[in-house]
Amino acid sequence: MPLRFATRASEAYDFPLTIGHLLDAALTSAADQEIVYRDRVRMTYRDLRVRIGRLASALAGLGVGQGTVVAMMDWDSHRYLEAYFAIPMMGAVLQTVNVRLPIAQIGYTLRHAEAEVVICHRDFLPALEALLPTLEGVTAVVVIDDGADEPASFAGAGEYEALLAAADPVFPFVEFDENALATTFYTTGTTGDPKGVCFSHRQIVLLALATKGPFGTTRDPGFGIGDVYMPLTPMFHVHAWCLPYVATLLGVKQVYPGRYEADMICRLRTTEHVTYSHCVPTVLQMIFAAADKAGTDLVGWTMTIGGSALTHALWEEGKRRGMSIGAGYGMSETGPTLTMARRNTGSADAASDVDALTPAGIPIALVSLRVVDEAMCDVSHDGVSRGEVVVRAPWLTPCYIGNAEASRELWRGGWMHTQDVATISSSGRVVICDRLKDVIKTGGEWIPSLELEDLIASLPEVAEVAVVGVPDKRWGERPVAVVVAAVGAPSLDTINTPITAAIERGDLSRYARLDRVEIVDALPRTSVGKIDKKALRFMLT
Amino acid sequence: MPLRFATRASEAYDFPLTIGHLLDAALTSAADQEIVYRDRVRMTYRDLRVRIGRLASALAGLGVGQGTVVAMMDWDSHRYLEAYFAIPMMGAVLQTVNVRLPIAQIGYTLRHAEAEVVICHRDFLPALEALLPTLEGVTAVVVIDDGADEPASFAGAGEYEALLAAADPVFPFVEFDENALATTFYTTGTTGDPKGVCFSHRQIVLLALATKGPFGTTRDPGFGIGDVYMPLTPMFHVHAWCLPYVATLLGVKQVYPGRYEADMICRLRTTEHVTYSHCVPTVLQMIFAAADKAGTDLVGWTMTIGGSALTHALWEEGKRRGMSIGAGYGMSETGPTLTMARRNTGSADAASDVDALTPAGIPIALVSLRVVDEAMCDVSHDGVSRGEVVVRAPWLTPCYIGNAEASRELWRGGWMHTQDVATISSSGRVVICDRLKDVIKTGGEWIPSLELEDLIASLPEVAEVAVVGVPDKRWGERPVAVVVAAVGAPSLDTINTPITAAIERGDLSRYARLDRVEIVDALPRTSVGKIDKKALRFMLT
Repeated sequence: MPLRFATRASEAYDFPLTIGHLLDAALTSAADQEIVYRDRVRMTYRDLRVRIGRLASALAGLGVGQGTVVAMMDWDSHRYLEAYFAIPMMGAVLQTVNVRLPIAQIGYTLRHAEAEVVICHRDFLPALEALLPTLEGVTAVVVIDDGADEPASFAGAGEYEALLAAADPVFPFVEFDENALATTFYTTGTTGDPKGVCFSHRQIVLLALATKGPFGTTRDPGFGIGDVYMPLTPMFHVHAWCLPYVATLLGVKQVYPGRYEADMICRLRTTEHVTYSHCVPTVLQMIFAAADKAGTDLVGWTMTIGGSALTHALWEEGKRRGMSIGAGYGMSETGPTLTMARRNTGSADAASDVDALTPAGIPIALVSLRVVDEAMCDVSHDGVSRGEVVVRAPWLTPCYIGNAEASRELWRGGWMHTQDVATISSSGRVVICDRLKDVIKTGGEWIPSLELEDLIASLPEVAEVAVVGVPDKRWGERPVAVVVAAVGAPSLDTINTPITAAIERGDLSRYARLDRVEIVDALPRTSVGKIDKKALRFMLT
Repeated sequence: MPLRFATRASEAYDFPLTIGHLLDAALTSAADQEIVYRDRVRMTYRDLRVRIGRLASALAGLGVGQGTVVAMMDWDSHRYLEAYFAIPMMGAVLQTVNVRLPIAQIGYTLRHAEAEVVICHRDFLPALEALLPTLEGVTAVVVIDDGADEPASFAGAGEYEALLAAADPVFPFVEFDENALATTFYTTGTTGDPKGVCFSHRQIVLLALATKGPFGTTRDPGFGIGDVYMPLTPMFHVHAWCLPYVATLLGVKQVYPGRYEADMICRLRTTEHVTYSHCVPTVLQMIFAAADKAGTDLVGWTMTIGGSALTHALWEEGKRRGMSIGAGYGMSETGPTLTMARRNTGSADAASDVDALTPAGIPIALVSLRVVDEAMCDVSHDGVSRGEVVVRAPWLTPCYIGNAEASRELWRGGWMHTQDVATISSSGRVVICDRLKDVIKTGGEWIPSLELEDLIASLPEVAEVAVVGVPDKRWGERPVAVVVAAVGAPSLDTINTPITAAIERGDLSRYARLDRVEIVDALPRTSVGKIDKKALRFMLT
């Protein structure tokens, strides 16, 4: 066997896919490149590396070692970027805390992750102080003063900048297994406790490599060397889509906006010449409004939009302003990126720009994505047949932390179940239609509730509408519309008008026609303001 | 400890970095994309996948299993691409045979690698038949007829297309360890037997991921989705720089030119609209000559040039023809890619296009590259100080097969020694100056022999020149020029004229001035026609 000859040289370097290596190329080629925090801090990649060493030394002084969970509660900042590197590079685990959660849930996630050290911006100190009596595992709090004139009332284990200044810039980072955990954070569903996902060094490095490039062609909204990067998805949320790691790998200029304030964002876009960002649709709308007020030029700003659907209207509005906008798709469980929108699919493909760039997009490198029916058989790649998106990729969470049952359900049959319903075209273009639990399964067809709701909402007689499936002996489920009327009480026929038209156009299955409508005064909502379809189904069954 | 919670779901898919996964995204998004072989074969990625299955089934029928070495002797073709996937995907090892080697050396590499099956184009059958009596390990030869009217005189175990046609398209590929060996091939030095390098699945997948993208920005010569790919570096040579794997990962159209014939290359460039290729400088020169004869338009053809230095003249000639050309750097031992030339380095950098795009370039993602002196200390990143390039990356050969001493030397001190002498700038730009064994170490300075040779060759009195270092008690070494005169016998002073000018300009160390010149009738050469500096040094010492 020839393999016996292939004896590794004893000194051959066995390169682990650890996060520290994402700095290698940048420190060689971009050591003088800038990292900017609002209008307050300018530093270089060389400085970043020194501060990573100091942060690690300071945390080691607080008892942080391999496996220790260090929680971060900060706005988007150069400090967060330092934590993205220093904490995993120590072999510790970075918990990115969703600071928008209700206080009680923040407490739950800190306890559940067994965080021992919390690095906390002064803005979140009141919440953290209130929680501390319930956080027995927390041994130290590092306070971020963020340049305020007065120190925070709570001193904790010290102030972030003071601790860094006193710490040794040379920390003896060691190599370790690339499968060591690097990050954790908690997803929030509409019901139940937040669920923790976690990612290893290897997973983050591979996602950064796969994200780099696949959308870096000249005709598509992209991100590459020469760009100036500013995240507009919070850094606590799925590693800001892993793009701070990609930006560092590319050695591009990075701009961190702190707390999201539309004025500051528009000012940084102009003064720092930001060319690439990513955000959810509502942030983009906020930027449009602020840009109108401030007269900010948005020409040439490329944005990836995720989190919720990118509407045609929002895309067109961006185009009118000279922006280059494309959708991306993923979720907390997937690190997050699974697909990126692009024009060129490699196959004959006549989609218009808006049709190509607003849906979820095409799987990126190493994403094995299927759209399957309930028997896990692939649906036809015809852009019409619907099924659940299931995936394999090297960067998916292996579990929900401490929740074996949910983990089993997530990975049922060896594929990660996204619970998103989609179509897929012959050129791999994925269009998300609905959440699996909201899709109506009737007569063997999957009918997205969102599509019926959009059609019904187009009627002037309708103020608000929700459509849910209710059990039916013959058809499995049948769609029922619950309507808040704008005027009078629209009839079943009226409500069915746009649906019938869609059926006649061939856009919808004939099983979509409604045989029941309920008129109500108001729709039930969850604590975060979403329509509570669970309550509706309960009410109608 | 939080880690105890992070129990992998039992069904969670542990995604190995195996070569088969490079097909995943392409088969979803580019199943109808074309793969073309000369003017003879057109097929799709879907067909490719079916033929990969058939090839694996056929090889299994010949006894190929995990660890079996299958040697490929073919011109650049769709068949070679099939072998790039099918053989490693079976867990077997693909040996890409350098068909340009002397027959005896081909035999040596087949024996040394313990190849059991050889897939051989009819053009190479006479050589293989002559070798067969010495190849006891070879149990089967698959003959490639390549569409010829007459079958080859040697039948072997069957003809490639006939075997595929008879084989099951569904081969039961199984997952295995990503560290399994995937490929092997042999490098040729100027002396000694060829040395075997080898690469695992993980290494090839990571190199493909890292290669994808870093040069895919709008201003630099790049390769991305929408391009049409044609290799012009033989597929036997370091996986054609891994770019057939990258092309497949991207799902782009691929064109394989068979035996390199300038007419066919120019015709394919035109008819298939080729936009991206890579080659050595001599192939580019051959294309220029052929394009002039055929009137081929080269506008918009992007090329990466490696193997030897890309001269300013060649780059300018490409620019004049509307091409986009940039250098790349690597070697057989490194998979090969280490650096790619680009304009934008991320740092303030005033290099002109030709100065930015002709040298080796900037390290790509995950390449940790140093330029060091003999004590392994980094030289200054000033673009002037010289040292040896040493590297770490996840895709470097772990050894020379069956050669512990050379392996130890290659990986001395935990860094792979390239034996190339280079400078590096503050923005990470690497400029290769010389081979380590040819550089002249005198008075503590490293003086590249190539630079002295260029200067001396500019004299009208000089027909040919070689400069070597000879031992010197006081200075370590001293440069000696060996000159074939064009007219008369140029004096030491004459030879020193351009060197003195360069010293005065500050381009060369004062230690570079010669104190000895030898005039000869002819320079000694090796069997492949290179100047034999080893013989010169022996002659002068």
